[in-house]
This record gives sequence, structure tokens and C-alpha cells, in this order.
Amino acid sequence: MTTADLLARRERLLGAGAALFYKDPINIVRGEGVWLSDPDGRRYLDMYNNVPCVGHAHPHVVEAMHRQAATLNVHSRYLHAGILDYAERLMDLHADPLTSVVFTCTGTEANEVAMRMARTATGGRGIICTNAGYHGNSAEVGKLTRAGQPGRETSSDIRSIPFPQRYRPLEEGTSEADLTELYLAEVRAAIEDFARNDVPFAGMLVCPILANEGLPDIPAGFMTRAAEIVRDAGGLFIADEVQAGFCRTGQWWGYEVTDFVPDIVTMGKPMGNGLPLAACAASSELVDTFRKQTRYFNTFASSPLQAAVGMAVLDVIEKEELQQNAATVGGYLRGELEKLQQGCEPMGDVRGHGLFIGLEWVSDRSDKTPDREAAVTVVNHLKDKGFLISNAGALGNVLKIRPPLVFQQDHADLFLTALQETLHELHGQG
Amino acid sequence: MTTADLLARRERLLGAGAALFYKDPINIVRGEGVWLSDPDGRRYLDMYNNVPCVGHAHPHVVEAMHRQAATLNVHSRYLHAGILDYAERLMDLHADPLTSVVFTCTGTEANEVAMRMARTATGGRGIICTNAGYHGNSAEVGKLTRAGQPGRETSSDIRSIPFPQRYRPLEEGTSEADLTELYLAEVRAAIEDFARNDVPFAGMLVCPILANEGLPDIPAGFMTRAAEIVRDAGGLFIADEVQAGFCRTGQWWGYEVTDFVPDIVTMGKPMGNGLPLAACAASSELVDTFRKQTRYFNTFASSPLQAAVGMAVLDVIEKEELQQNAATVGGYLRGELEKLQQGCEPMGDVRGHGLFIGLEWVSDRSDKTPDREAAVTVVNHLKDKGFLISNAGALGNVLKIRPPLVFQQDHADLFLTALQETLHELHGQG
Repeated sequence: MTTADLLARRERLLGAGAALFYKDPINIVRGEGVWLSDPDGRRYLDMYNNVPCVGHAHPHVVEAMHRQAATLNVHSRYLHAGILDYAERLMDLHADPLTSVVFTCTGTEANEVAMRMARTATGGRGIICTNAGYHGNSAEVGKLTRAGQPGRETSSDIRSIPFPQRYRPLEEGTSEADLTELYLAEVRAAIEDFARNDVPFAGMLVCPILANEGLPDIPAGFMTRAAEIVRDAGGLFIADEVQAGFCRTGQWWGYEVTDFVPDIVTMGKPMGNGLPLAACAASSELVDTFRKQTRYFNTFASSPLQAAVGMAVLDVIEKEELQQNAATVGGYLRGELEKLQQGCEPMGDVRGHGLFIGLEWVSDRSDKTPDREAAVTVVNHLKDKGFLISNAGALGNVLKIRPPLVFQQDHADLFLTALQETLHELHGQG
Repeated sequence: MTTADLLARRERLLGAGAALFYKDPINIVRGEGVWLSDPDGRRYLDMYNNVPCVGHAHPHVVEAMHRQAATLNVHSRYLHAGILDYAERLMDLHADPLTSVVFTCTGTEANEVAMRMARTATGGRGIICTNAGYHGNSAEVGKLTRAGQPGRETSSDIRSIPFPQRYRPLEEGTSEADLTELYLAEVRAAIEDFARNDVPFAGMLVCPILANEGLPDIPAGFMTRAAEIVRDAGGLFIADEVQAGFCRTGQWWGYEVTDFVPDIVTMGKPMGNGLPLAACAASSELVDTFRKQTRYFNTFASSPLQAAVGMAVLDVIEKEELQQNAATVGGYLRGELEKLQQGCEPMGDVRGHGLFIGLEWVSDRSDKTPDREAAVTVVNHLKDKGFLISNAGALGNVLKIRPPLVFQQDHADLFLTALQETLHELHGQG
């Protein structure tokens, strides 16, 4: 079946406008480690997918899934030690007050739980987010999508702040410490605006490394201080670790990178290496209150299958030392990209943590004019060379590099060569 | 580990109040076909679980999951024939205007999509449901949970009608035809109330067999006529097939039982035999409009894994003729229960479709006083005898019998004997 046939069938069966990557989309039939293959055996180096965090089709995870599916997979209103063993191991990886967990199937569902947990615990409604975030696709969580941007519906119980960043700061020429204060003032203003409108405050929900915002360098101390301000106002601070968690950054959790401890944390994407598995964790007091007030139940979640697969993912992360790998290989790749940047005008900024790197693409380095179109061109050129990345960020001009955590230095070198070739072809640079 | 230990760990790790079945909860470690087993090898006949519709740990489904997980499992922004083959086969099972599908991970997410699809297509907001339904656990879908009941929050864009039924009708002594009219008048009144409050109308969302309402006998023609009224008012009619679908009733879809064709249909629970897999289907026009207006994306959905497992479930349903089995064995079981009812005062009503049967438990057959406590006692007695059912319905007094579709006549006979023993022990009857 040709690509054109697949596209026509897809449009008819899944609807016109179902999202696809790349100008000429690719047909993927096989995955192994960091490699994806098409039906003709053409291989692509996967530098985008964070869900298969321990690598595509990892045998240990596949085997755990197979064994549990052949043994038992049932809902959570019976007792089952597997889900408790997994919950215990998962929560042992978290900072101290986070000890109890509500499992769900998707990050969207985890953020639904988190918002409801903050609201049941505080009795409030108002939630602060950033103006360029994304936390899921439900009606309630969707209110946080690029909240406050032109064309977005406003909601009485959501306020957004400009996301904290150093590259395009709220005010040019400000010291980092003053910049932190400027963004904190936005948090205070949002809280005051809720009070002025008689919306009781519930908390703040952000990705601790602001992944969808474009992975900016966040002015130092912002997250710690914002959490204090939120708590002082009676709210709870929710960290969405759906992208940042599970060693992506070289640390276990994104909140370790930006140096704070959230009251509530949500997890998702990499958690089951592709099996729908997500969670919302908090102190046992918060989880108890949530359980008692909502009687939340999720048919497919907290299942023996989720537990077995989630456990296998943790096994591999530890056994293959993927936290260290993300730090080491990510650090190497970032260092090489910074070298490349010196001779590459459009590479306005190189930033990120571990194996999550953002390259800000600009048409002019000095005025930082975002160049989304050029970023898209680079993404498509790299795809043609067999390297899969994407573009993201508040302005769509950030190259997003986020490979499975088993990505090695030799893979990085292959990519660096391809990127240099691409830059040379497009700009005569690099 | 003892049950007490498991309970203590569970409370600590998953929160006090995480739902459990039975007065003395059971620890299940293995499933096969219609049987579940505890660690001591004690077997329970599963007459509750609709998710493992082709039976627990069915080898064909387990093998399909294993094969696909070992080959490829990735998100849907690449082309993949597997998801199209599955979408095509699934939609061929549906009535004519339903041709395109949006896959999700859970029934909650499918109903989120359905509500949004109805709203994007009509430009309206107002949705009608029943007063004793349940369609999912998100904030938006949760507005439909027992809407309009005392203690429930009201929402400006939701109206509920008393669910249509013959056992406890809106007016006693009414003919069935007049009863249909009475309930249809409630639909019209809800639409008029939206208009009066300037809430533009979007549609009606119900389970076509009113499963959570307690599986009532629905006055003839109600669904067909309600769908007409909804469409005449510019709305769309959404059938939630999460419980009713996939041959549960002896028909492929619940809407065939109540004889209408919905504009939008949602599916879930049995679809992946336990793998999180759900969907919202409609005409290609409706799906196109939804896709274009929302750019909906769901990380774990439309995956090769969902497709392979969903396809394997369809294979088994067809190969093992489970539609016919549900009709035949369900009909046998219902017939035998009707015989039992004659000598059993508390069994106020026997009803249902295929392998989905409800027994209304009452303290007095003539005045139909619901007896939830007695129903719970029967459920726990049966559990002690090794038979797993539950209680449900608007008043919690309906015994819910809903085994995997591979349930056979000899299983029904085992259950009937245990039920007679239970009735004899509790009531000296049966």
C-alpha cells in the first residue's frame, strides 16, 4: 500500500486533520531501541519519542507485559499485591511528602485528578498556569492549554502568567534575580485577581521544566519561590512530570532540576513505555481526602498489567543506568551543539536538561526573531536524512530533541553530522 | 501476605477509600476464561466483569499483544496500516452513517470527545442525560453523573430527565405507549429549558440500554423518538456503548436492542479485553469537523498496540460466535431466573438483554420498596460461595449479572444452584 493510499484511508477512517508529522509523513512498521523502520527497511534514528523511554520494544518490558496479560488483568476493586509493590517502588523514588498515588491511564486523566485533588483539599477553584503550556486534552485540563493567549476561551477559574524565561525576558536588561522577581509578581497578581473576582484559590499547575513552553532557562529560584507564594495563599503546587519525569533530565524528576518539592505531582508518558499508564501522587492526607470526597474509579487503571509493565520500566531504568546515561549523553550532545551554535546564526539558543534539548531557531541572532518556518524546514530535512525530531515551543520555533533514554554517544555523533550537513545545505553554515 | 496486610498497605499507598468490592475483599492472582483464582487456589466464577469480554487471559489476545509490543508501539503521528485496518473492521460493524473514529484510551476520554464533537458540530453547549447515569470520571463528563439528583452540583449546560422505565414508571397505571409520551415530554421540557436560559442545545447522551440506571425495561419507542426530537431541535444523539457494546446484549450494539441509530457512539470497556482502548465514532463529516476544530491528539491512542489487541478481540468474538452465545446463554439464564422469581418474593423484577441481567431486589413485591441492603447481602453470600456479581442501579438494589461473554450454560447452572441456596439461607425461599 502506497503512502497516498494510506493517507486517503486514514482521512476517511480517522478524519481529515488527524495530526501527522512531517511534510511527507512516514510509515513506521518496526521499532527497536532508538531505531524505527519503514516497510522498505529504511531506518530512522528516533530522537523524538519520550514514551518508549527504555527503547522501542524493550524485551524486558515486552516480556513483563506478556507474562502478566497471560496471568491476570483485572480492575482494582479486588486486592492485588502487584499494584502495591509498584506503588511503593514508585513513591520511594519521590521526595518525602509524596507517598500515595492515584493511578490513571493517561496524563490528561492524571491532571484531571490533580486539579480535583487541589480543589477538594483547598475548597478553592482558581488554578494558575503559564500562557504557553499544555497538560492534556479534556475539557477541564484543556482550559490550561495556552491559557490567556489570543483566540483562547477564557475561564473564570484559570489565570495564566507569562512563562518565566531568560531568552525573551519580561524586561530586557534585567538581572536574573530581578527577572525572578518580575515573574513572581505575575504569580502574586494572578492570586490577587482571583481574590478580586471572588474565585477561591486552589493552586498552580506547571511543568517543572516548562517543556511545552519550549524548555526555557528559568530564572533561578522561580519554582521554589512560586511554590512558597502559592502555599502562603492557601493553594497547592502541582508539578506536571508527564514529560519531565523518569530520568528524562538526568535527574529522576523535573522538580529536582528546578529545585523544589511539589505538593502534587502527575506522571505519564514514559511510565509504561507505551502502555497507557499515568498517575497523580501526593501526601497520603491529600490522596485520602480526594478518595473520600470523590470515590474516584478508573476501569483500566491500577491494574495488574499496569503494575507489571510499570515495574519492568523501573527495572530497566535502574539496571541500564539510564539516569546517568541521560545526564552523560545529554551533556555531551548539548556541549557539541553549543560548539555548533558558534558558527550557526539561526541557532539562537541551546538549552535543556539531560536528553531533552531545545534549539531556538531565529532569523536574526541579535533581535531573536523566531523563525518557525526555518525550524520546520530543518525538521523535514533531518527526517529525509533519517533523523526524527520535531518543532515545539510557545512560538513553534524550537527544535525539540528528546530521544529514548537508551540513546548513546555514537547516536549523538550521527545526528551531529546530519545536522551539520543540513545547516550547510540550508544556510551554507555549520 | 494476609488480607489485613494487603488492606493496610493499600490504604497507605493508594489512599483510604480507594474502592473495593465485597465486605471481605478478595485477593485475585489469576484469571482464565470465566474463572478468577486467589493465592490459595480458590476459584471464583466471574459473573461481573465485562472488560475481559472474551475471557480472562485469552491466548489469542495475549499473543496479539505480545507480538505487537515486540514489534512496534508508537503514537499516531506516523502512518500505520494496523490502526486503519482495525478502524475499518470496527466501523463495518456499525450502522450506516457511522464510518469514522477517534480512538482514546478510556470511556471517559471517549465521552469527552463525544460531548466536544456534538458541541463543535452544533455550536451548542446544552446536553441532556438521565438522572441516574454514569459516563466517566473527568470534570466535564462527571457533570452527567446522576445529574439533577439531590447533593449533586448543577451545571448550566446539563439537564437530566428521569430515566425511562416500566418498573417504577413516572405515573402508575399508564399504558406503555402513554408512558413513552410522558418520558418524551421530559426530553422536550429539557430542550425548552435550555432555550429559556439561552443555552444553545448540543444534544443528548445516554447509554442505549440504561445500564447504570439499572437496566430497566424502557418504554417502547423511547430512544427512536427521543433521537428524532433531539435532531429536530438541532442536537445530536450520542449513544454511550461503553457497557452495552461488543455483543454484551446478544446484539453487536445496544442501539440495536432499543432500535435506533445514534449520530455519535462511544465505546470502551470490552474493546481491548483489558488493554486501555476506547473510541468515539460518527459520520466522517462530524469527525472531520471535530478534528479540524480541536486538533485533538491522544498520546497512547490510535497506537499499533491498541489496533492489534482490538483486532484480536474482534477475531475471538467472531470465531467463538460470542454474539450468539450471549443471546443463547443469556436467554437461558434469564428464563431460569424468571422461573425462580415465582417463588422468591424479593426478586421484584428480572430484566436485561443477553449476558447482562438485572434483578431488582425489593422488600415487598407489591409496593416495590427497593432493598439495597438485602441486595448487598446476596452479593456477599454469593461471593462466599465463589460467585462474583455486584449491585448497581439508581437505588443500588439491582443485582448486576454481567459475565465474560464466554460464559456457558453449565456456568449458568452452577450459579442458579448457588443463588437458590443463598435465597434459601436468607429467606427460606427459592
